[in-house]
Amino acid sequence: MFSVTVRDHIMIAHSFRGEVFGPAQRLHGATFVVDATFRRPELDADGIVVDIGLATEQLKAVLGELNYRNLDDEPAFAGTNTTTEVLCRTIADRLAEAVHGGRLGDGARGLAGIAVTLHESHVAWASYERAL
Amino acid sequence: MFSVTVRDHIMIAHSFRGEVFGPAQRLHGATFVVDATFRRPELDADGIVVDIGLATEQLKAVLGELNYRNLDDEPAFAGTNTTTEVLCRTIADRLAEAVHGGRLGDGARGLAGIAVTLHESHVAWASYERAL
Amino acid sequence: MFSVTVRDHIMIAHSFRGEVFGPAQRLHGATFVVDATFRRPELDADGIVVDIGLATEQLKAVLGELNYRNLDDEPAFAGTNTTTEVLCRTIADRLAEAVHGGRLGDGARGLAGIAVTLHESHVAWASYERAL
Amino acid sequence: MFSVTVRDHIMIAHSFRGEVFGPAQRLHGATFVVDATFRRPELDADGIVVDIGLATEQLKAVLGELNYRNLDDEPAFAGTNTTTEVLCRTIADRLAEAVHGGRLGDGARGLAGIAVTLHESHVAWASYERAL
Amino acid sequence: MFSVTVRDHIMIAHSFRGEVFGPAQRLHGATFVVDATFRRPELDADGIVVDIGLATEQLKAVLGELNYRNLDDEPAFAGTNTTTEVLCRTIADRLAEAVHGGRLGDGARGLAGIAVTLHESHVAWASYERAL
Amino acid sequence: MFSVTVRDHIMIAHSFRGEVFGPAQRLHGATFVVDATFRRPELDADGIVVDIGLATEQLKAVLGELNYRNLDDEPAFAGTNTTTEVLCRTIADRLAEAVHGGRLGDGARGLAGIAVTLHESHVAWASYERAL
Repeated sequence: MFSVTVRDHIMIAHSFRGEVFGPAQRLHGATFVVDATFRRPELDADGIVVDIGLATEQLKAVLGELNYRNLDDEPAFAGTNTTTEVLCRTIADRLAEAVHGGRLGDGARGLAGIAVTLHESHVAWASYERAL
Repeated sequence: MFSVTVRDHIMIAHSFRGEVFGPAQRLHGATFVVDATFRRPELDADGIVVDIGLATEQLKAVLGELNYRNLDDEPAFAGTNTTTEVLCRTIADRLAEAVHGGRLGDGARGLAGIAVTLHESHVAWASYERAL
Repeated sequence: MFSVTVRDHIMIAHSFRGEVFGPAQRLHGATFVVDATFRRPELDADGIVVDIGLATEQLKAVLGELNYRNLDDEPAFAGTNTTTEVLCRTIADRLAEAVHGGRLGDGARGLAGIAVTLHESHVAWASYERAL
Repeated sequence: MFSVTVRDHIMIAHSFRGEVFGPAQRLHGATFVVDATFRRPELDADGIVVDIGLATEQLKAVLGELNYRNLDDEPAFAGTNTTTEVLCRTIADRLAEAVHGGRLGDGARGLAGIAVTLHESHVAWASYERAL
Repeated sequence: MFSVTVRDHIMIAHSFRGEVFGPAQRLHGATFVVDATFRRPELDADGIVVDIGLATEQLKAVLGELNYRNLDDEPAFAGTNTTTEVLCRTIADRLAEAVHGGRLGDGARGLAGIAVTLHESHVAWASYERAL
Repeated sequence: MFSVTVRDHIMIAHSFRGEVFGPAQRLHGATFVVDATFRRPELDADGIVVDIGLATEQLKAVLGELNYRNLDDEPAFAGTNTTTEVLCRTIADRLAEAVHGGRLGDGARGLAGIAVTLHESHVAWASYERAL
């Protein structure tokens, strides 16, 4: 199995509902360093997993809808805690849509899966992986 | 599949028995930067894999039994080489006991697996993963 | 010259006033990984720059006044852009007060300077250094 | 499942054929920080995955055939784009040969798989994993 | 003293003349992860060292003249070994020109110095710092 | 001012005397990732700060006298706490001797200073810098 990963980041504000979150129930924020991994069993004719330029561009596009925002105000997350785990899944799902919509190129139709990791600090991170 | 990872560290002394260990047969030591990963297929009702506060606390508790010690003197490791690999398994197994004992909260009963990575330097690390 | 550095982090929300900040004028947030460096020309009688336990504890105390907060609502920053640079200075000044107040121990009175670095992502960070 | 990873690096020149590579069609170069991971379900009698000294030595030997070279001139890659993905597979396959040839020791015959990751920058990396 | 650092990278090919360089006399390449640090004693009216957007943009512009190239063919380096140290100075000098030319904004005229670090691997890096 | 840094590591056991060290008064150990920085105002005729091959070799030689040892048993440290700070100075001083003894080459006689940083974990490190 082959994979390629590209990294970018977002800076967002949000708050959580639920006692389990302790002081994070207050409005606070985070830098999420975001790693998007694309997987496939065989390389395409160019010898690559995915066009890394398009992968970088589409990750930036997906992150652009979240970046520099208060996620508490985003309709897409109404009634949902925007935990690191939930954001991993949201970003992975939106990248999957980009693949299916052809925005990562025709070669990307051979991708088998996507994994997204969000690093919220030097001591904590979360991941979500899914098939394509 | 979702995962959450928390990081901590320990500083221990030990020595190894066996020619394969070369100069590490002498009493020496290591800082192990420890990553504990918790995995589950679906998030709980709060949108999380595990209460990150409890995960951090329980990892610290497990590491507290090893930290600032000469592992050659620990009864738990009598007759065992405390290699990085063995320590990964020990820590993962003790975290699994903590999960089963309810010390990571009721939600943690939905966890599917645990992985532990010990970084012994900037150029070497080891991991162990197990089901729950 | 000797130095010792300890690392911790905060997660805050804030917004900026001024066109130079572009989209960061919206309410957003950041994880700041914080490095506090203590400097002195000679070691104390124990062979250390500062009691690393106290340094870690006092950094956590200073950061505790900022962590999990919306800095736009903090009276201490009224009328001030809480840029990464400004936060570096704030944290360094509060650590300096802790040194002068004896909260880093008597030995810490031999410290010559403090530097604070805030990493706001994997591609940007800021620092402030001052004498004691 | 257990694993052990060792890290080294190479510095090479190369160019790519294919429009998908954009400016990387020009002769350029890269530092690849290389992580080689060895996996097995059970530890050997010494409590290890593999002799880390031999693993480091054999990784260096495999990388020595690529290091400080223009890969466009290497017969082994004639007609092949030496993408990060392709290099991951080449290095993994050569390490697999080293295992089968006994150069990682007799214990290494219990290895189940190898994974190789090449970091080409702070924002991009690729991996390949295979069974043994 | 305040500073702000932004990070980017280049991938280049080159070779060295001189026995001291050993195998690096052959045509090879490197990824240089580049950190550009801007320093000043006091913050500007917005509470910043430099407009981080412009700093990122100008660093990218300076690096764009080197990226994806064989430096052995670049007239600017004719007769010069493009060592990591020399590249640090080149990039710092070109950023200094950008500051003097107003391309980092009017506020940047208050900058006191620039430092550039090039990381050539996980185990080696070089820096150059200069006044403005 | 130019600088070049090379990185290596050691794994040692030791204990401390003094209440300030708390649980570290017990025999424990550490991995120290060691960065040795060489500084000079002007480059030599080859365009370098120091022969990086010799720098790497000499750092390894200096570290070889400490690596895989219990520092409590080393005569060189009798009556001295081998704190991270003290080890920084010891390594820097021994590298300075290597420079003066010509073991970093004739060009190294133009070096102005040396700095040594020891990272003892992901959240703590110490440095010592001296003139040559």
